[in-house]
Amino acid sequence: MVTFLAGGTGTPKLLDGATRVWDPDEVAVVANTGDDVELGGHLVCPDVDTVLFAGGGVLDRDRWWGIEGDTTETHGELRRLADEIGIEPGPRYLDADAQTAGREIARWRRFSAVGEFMEIGDRDRAVHLTRTSLLDEGHTLTETTRTLADAFGLDGDLLPMSDDPVATLVHTADGETLHFQEYWVARRGKPAVADVEFRGADTAAPTDAVRQALADPVVIGPSNPVTSIGPMLALPGFERALRETPVVAVSPFVGDEVFSGPAADLMAGTGTDPSTAGVAETYPFADAFVLDEDDPTSLDRHVERTDTQIGDGDDAERVSRACERALEAVGAGELPPSGGPDPDGDLASDAEVTER
Amino acid sequence: MVTFLAGGTGTPKLLDGATRVWDPDEVAVVANTGDDVELGGHLVCPDVDTVLFAGGGVLDRDRWWGIEGDTTETHGELRRLADEIGIEPGPRYLDADAQTAGREIARWRRFSAVGEFMEIGDRDRAVHLTRTSLLDEGHTLTETTRTLADAFGLDGDLLPMSDDPVATLVHTADGETLHFQEYWVARRGKPAVADVEFRGADTAAPTDAVRQALADPVVIGPSNPVTSIGPMLALPGFERALRETPVVAVSPFVGDEVFSGPAADLMAGTGTDPSTAGVAETYPFADAFVLDEDDPTSLDRHVERTDTQIGDGDDAERVSRACERALEAVGAGELPPSGGPDPDGDLASDAEVTER
Repeated sequence: MVTFLAGGTGTPKLLDGATRVWDPDEVAVVANTGDDVELGGHLVCPDVDTVLFAGGGVLDRDRWWGIEGDTTETHGELRRLADEIGIEPGPRYLDADAQTAGREIARWRRFSAVGEFMEIGDRDRAVHLTRTSLLDEGHTLTETTRTLADAFGLDGDLLPMSDDPVATLVHTADGETLHFQEYWVARRGKPAVADVEFRGADTAAPTDAVRQALADPVVIGPSNPVTSIGPMLALPGFERALRETPVVAVSPFVGDEVFSGPAADLMAGTGTDPSTAGVAETYPFADAFVLDEDDPTSLDRHVERTDTQIGDGDDAERVSRACERALEAVGAGELPPSGGPDPDGDLASDAEVTER
Repeated sequence: MVTFLAGGTGTPKLLDGATRVWDPDEVAVVANTGDDVELGGHLVCPDVDTVLFAGGGVLDRDRWWGIEGDTTETHGELRRLADEIGIEPGPRYLDADAQTAGREIARWRRFSAVGEFMEIGDRDRAVHLTRTSLLDEGHTLTETTRTLADAFGLDGDLLPMSDDPVATLVHTADGETLHFQEYWVARRGKPAVADVEFRGADTAAPTDAVRQALADPVVIGPSNPVTSIGPMLALPGFERALRETPVVAVSPFVGDEVFSGPAADLMAGTGTDPSTAGVAETYPFADAFVLDEDDPTSLDRHVERTDTQIGDGDDAERVSRACERALEAVGAGELPPSGGPDPDGDLASDAEVTER
């Protein structure tokens, strides 16, 4: 068994090749939920869904979010209605009282759907509706995610990092507090970042399923260390679990050049050098790194080098093989297939939603 | 000013002609909200929306609900996902605790969206989402409905009967308690009816806007007296207001033959003769009736006769003119244009949602 920590697009792209290196049934993915929002009463889990849709073969691979060929009838009408009402486009946070009312898992990131500031496709929306209704029927996010993973035909295990609420909030240099989706989708990552907060993380917990998955060797793909991986690291016990298992991380940088996304701005804003060196500092528990062959950084840990640009499945396979070599080099090869409390490693069927 | 009480399809069909008889700006419609459900977290108001979509020129006039030409991408995917999960189609009531949690207005009729037992179109869904989010932003259902009415370009005033929750529940002969939408949509009106309950009505109130509208002459269209008009009559003070203003009712029967819908079964089940005579008994406050020319019923109140079958706008105009004659006959012509506490009769602009 091998466990990937995923958020944004970096790790999902790597996963396209990981399943050529490892048996898909032997792969678990722990997905960031700090980016999630409740939008018009629906829990939207962007990082979970990118893995869900990729694994189910329906991901829009031009955008790396949403469902390929999806329509946007509801979204278009939401925009039209807001325009008729005279409401400007943009995020509409519900008021402070509402942020801690209703579904606990949606705390601190509840938005009105009026004018819907994030584009939600019509079939995509059915996933959010099904998830939200399964939660309302009394299931956990973990159960709900596994149920959706089965519905989309995923082979491996897909796990939200926690069943508790964690909200990634960006504090700007101008003194604003923006949920990550407001910062990234509505404001295009432009505001200067002063700090990033993972609200709720102190009292949230990784799930039992995540703890078990973290007992296996771990691959941190080229995701953004601050807002894709950071919310996981903020959970009590998460870093300690990583210290106790072989971990390889793929740098999302070539030296100080980032491949894509807001990682550099967010790292700089939170006081970390936006570079491979900064990533290594952020991941003190990592035993090995996969770096680009053009990356001039030298690290005090095991390094495998390859071309880390991932444009297609062949690239992803190449980087995955470098991860495999790195894990072998740091002793993961000596581990039993699963070192966790569930030696069968067969967790996926334990806690699904079944008809009552 | 003239006020219509509307629910189901009977009164909406009549409204097609009413605006040829009365100035559209002078027409107010009070819509039943007992049929409303919260489905996957969205407040769906079928009787409000039929008037909204008809007035906005977008109603699907084959079905008399939903938006003409609407797509059902989300609904189809909800059904597909439920099928993949192994969940049978049908209504999925949330548990008892959830029925009185969350938005107060949705009490006692909260359904999961898993498998979505009611077909919601994609553009239709945007209306429910906008309404629900405006409620979550702190607006009343009355404000939200007027805002949507403006967005759809309605001329007259469209008012939900109350800003408080009222749920129409059908108690069956088999001892089941079904929300009206479960009885009608999922069970096709087949279960034998033992009683109908308007849960919440005792403590709900007609809104101020409704009270003002009821000071004008009132037309009760050929709606189902039990579940379309009954929830209004169950509100404290509603019948008293009707006793104090001229009221004409159009019978949805020709003698004991009903035009359409579940009115006959519901009347029989609740101990009222399913006939024009039973309707007259249910509406003791009505000063006049419009009956079909083939209706053999004789009543102790003023009667205007015409062909009451409404198949198109011309039919609706003919029946509306009979209503106008009936109101004149019972003295409504002597009333000032508006007898209510707001003599301007210009309520629509008072309480809309505006950008904050």
